Amino acid sequence: MDKRGPGAQVGIGLLGLGVVGSSVATALRSPVGRDHGLRLCAALVRDPSRQRAVDLPPEMVTTDPDAILDSPDIDIVVELMGGEQPALEYISRALSAGKHVTTANKEVISKHGERLRELAAENGVSLQYEASVGGGIPIISPLLNDLVANEILGLRAIINGTTNYILTQMASGGTSFDDALAEAQRLGYAEADPTADVDAHDAVYKISILARLAFGVSVPVENIYREGIRRTAAQDFRYAEELGYTIKLLAAARREDGGLLVRVHPALIPGDVPMAKVEGVLNVVEVEGDLAGPLWFQGRGAGAKPTASAVMGDVLRAAAVLRHGGTLPQARQIDPGLPLLAMAEHECKYYLRLTVRDRPGVLAQIAGVLGDLEISIASVLQMDADPERGAADLVIMTHPAREANMQRAVQRIDALGVVDTVANLIRVESYPADR
Amino acid sequence: MDKRGPGAQVGIGLLGLGVVGSSVATALRSPVGRDHGLRLCAALVRDPSRQRAVDLPPEMVTTDPDAILDSPDIDIVVELMGGEQPALEYISRALSAGKHVTTANKEVISKHGERLRELAAENGVSLQYEASVGGGIPIISPLLNDLVANEILGLRAIINGTTNYILTQMASGGTSFDDALAEAQRLGYAEADPTADVDAHDAVYKISILARLAFGVSVPVENIYREGIRRTAAQDFRYAEELGYTIKLLAAARREDGGLLVRVHPALIPGDVPMAKVEGVLNVVEVEGDLAGPLWFQGRGAGAKPTASAVMGDVLRAAAVLRHGGTLPQARQIDPGLPLLAMAEHECKYYLRLTVRDRPGVLAQIAGVLGDLEISIASVLQMDADPERGAADLVIMTHPAREANMQRAVQRIDALGVVDTVANLIRVESYPADR
Repeated sequence: MDKRGPGAQVGIGLLGLGVVGSSVATALRSPVGRDHGLRLCAALVRDPSRQRAVDLPPEMVTTDPDAILDSPDIDIVVELMGGEQPALEYISRALSAGKHVTTANKEVISKHGERLRELAAENGVSLQYEASVGGGIPIISPLLNDLVANEILGLRAIINGTTNYILTQMASGGTSFDDALAEAQRLGYAEADPTADVDAHDAVYKISILARLAFGVSVPVENIYREGIRRTAAQDFRYAEELGYTIKLLAAARREDGGLLVRVHPALIPGDVPMAKVEGVLNVVEVEGDLAGPLWFQGRGAGAKPTASAVMGDVLRAAAVLRHGGTLPQARQIDPGLPLLAMAEHECKYYLRLTVRDRPGVLAQIAGVLGDLEISIASVLQMDADPERGAADLVIMTHPAREANMQRAVQRIDALGVVDTVANLIRVESYPADR
Repeated sequence: MDKRGPGAQVGIGLLGLGVVGSSVATALRSPVGRDHGLRLCAALVRDPSRQRAVDLPPEMVTTDPDAILDSPDIDIVVELMGGEQPALEYISRALSAGKHVTTANKEVISKHGERLRELAAENGVSLQYEASVGGGIPIISPLLNDLVANEILGLRAIINGTTNYILTQMASGGTSFDDALAEAQRLGYAEADPTADVDAHDAVYKISILARLAFGVSVPVENIYREGIRRTAAQDFRYAEELGYTIKLLAAARREDGGLLVRVHPALIPGDVPMAKVEGVLNVVEVEGDLAGPLWFQGRGAGAKPTASAVMGDVLRAAAVLRHGGTLPQARQIDPGLPLLAMAEHECKYYLRLTVRDRPGVLAQIAGVLGDLEISIASVLQMDADPERGAADLVIMTHPAREANMQRAVQRIDALGVVDTVANLIRVESYPADR
């Protein structure tokens, strides 16, 4: 296009003008945006009459996606609508029309990233999505740029602020899951329908994106082990603390013998490692490279302004390519030698909380089941006996065991007459001695 | 040059082949380097007969800098010699010869960065120095790329692994400074001459580099307030802990009313903020952006492999420009509206440790001096009385006060007959309530 060149204006179209979109629009129209020659041309909305945090001239606001996707003035399309459709369709159309795209849409990128990256390459434009993981924390860019010479050994992240807020409240206040969720909803940290967060769909989308970039492995979201935080109870935090741990919703991907294991589940984290101390709505991504060693990227993982920070970083990179040529770094080539492993292959220590009949011989029966499946017990805590019901909480910590064996053990233990319920099974995350 | 293009080999020359240089050479000759079309052409050494961690063909090793600086085969020069000269001369010659340069040299960049950046721009090549701060932690790249749309409000960092190791040992083991230093030297974390680290020259170089990139302010190293850790004593850690703090060597730069204040000194850090928990040789950089909010970048701030990770990131970026064109992002424009403030303008709470005569009326005299200079006392701890000498340790915590007043107060208190010595004055770092 003839409007490109060192001093030329770069036209931006926004898909979505909610709180994040308004924040991006504000940044584009601020001195930073103007100094970098960015010009907001149009913003797609559903309801033009709605009050917004940014005051745009009426002619800039449109309900017609074609006004952005077909506009010759628009060089960069910023997608902030969320959800799979029509976002996917609009992103595809923008790329096909030769427009650079930046999106915060973790669902679209985790499910359709491979195809969209190809589409971008075919059309000689960039597809960026720094804001899709970790809000304002630069994490995608370091994986694509700074750490390229590293073989990434593992990723571990607290990557969903809503659940980290809930778990932090439960840990510090002794509150129940329901109360902590209600408080998070009251403060706007959790949605009215909290499924995406508390059932860990959101964290699965994000670890899928990070794993693709870190390991060169395309990880279908349905193949990622996913367990949310609904089962986590107030007493789990109390017992975990006595054992020297806290509980976090962990998203992890790691090279193991024979492949890559990707998983999202609550985990007992030793109280003295950096991740244990990441509280409230903060996010952290731990990246372990063979050269760099362990690195931690920590900050606000959500919110209008942090997301706008990440989106603007993308937009300025795309604008630099429009003006000066060159290319943006590509995702690693797919590594065919690194298959996805099933969760059954995972090996770790386990925290097992049972409600059992408070009578002699109970532990012997449970220990028998575990022993048969080659699971060694590291410690047993009997706690909170309830003499009226004749029941007691029993907490068992195991030595490292295979997930497949542990799941079989849980089924058999659950069937024992002396066991009322297997109340919770939480994996214990292990860290090398030097961290 | 006709050897450029998408598939072309990129020639690399190394200045220095010590532990870091050997690590970079190994990475360049590894599959990662080869897959990216990097070719190590020559490495400059002082003594070719020395044993090294990397085994290079003899014809690749040279004692003649011209063999690298004048070689038409070499597109990128990697400087890892350290020290001001001849590194500065070689970097300047390489840039003038149209070669891209990456360096880990914090002294050269902090003292001569402005001129070298200009020289690079004049010659249409890049000057990169990710490894000069924070070892393997990506911090320069996020400041140059991802956070460009942010106005940076403040930087706070633990940026020298040697001193953080010493302070961590003192905090956890109750050891003296001398013993902790000796242990750090034994482990190779501290040099035989530890001046650069313990007297905080190293941290000053690094915060100068970061401040230039974050704020667009050229900060001459001699204008940065610098205080090392030699005065920090075992009992300071004991008293700090009683008061809820730990002690870190802090490098900070922050927008204040009227300008930018840059300083390096030991500081009391509240025990519950993320920086307080960064232990041993780890580094952390906290960046506060107006959009992104507070971000923490943490990892190994030194060592051959982490440094090689950062250098390789730079090299791969320069190689992409050689192949595909485009430019790398430039440092922010110098902001003439942000003058450097003197340390006398700083305002904070203070921790003051005095050895005083153990007799009535001492506190009244000291409080009188502080009151005259408008310094309010927040708390007083009298500790470790030594009846034989008739002396006692007195620890005073103040409310926020101006540095100029505090320095005057220390002089007057030191002159009081009832005061044996002003044993230490440590600034207390304040954090907003939400961190």
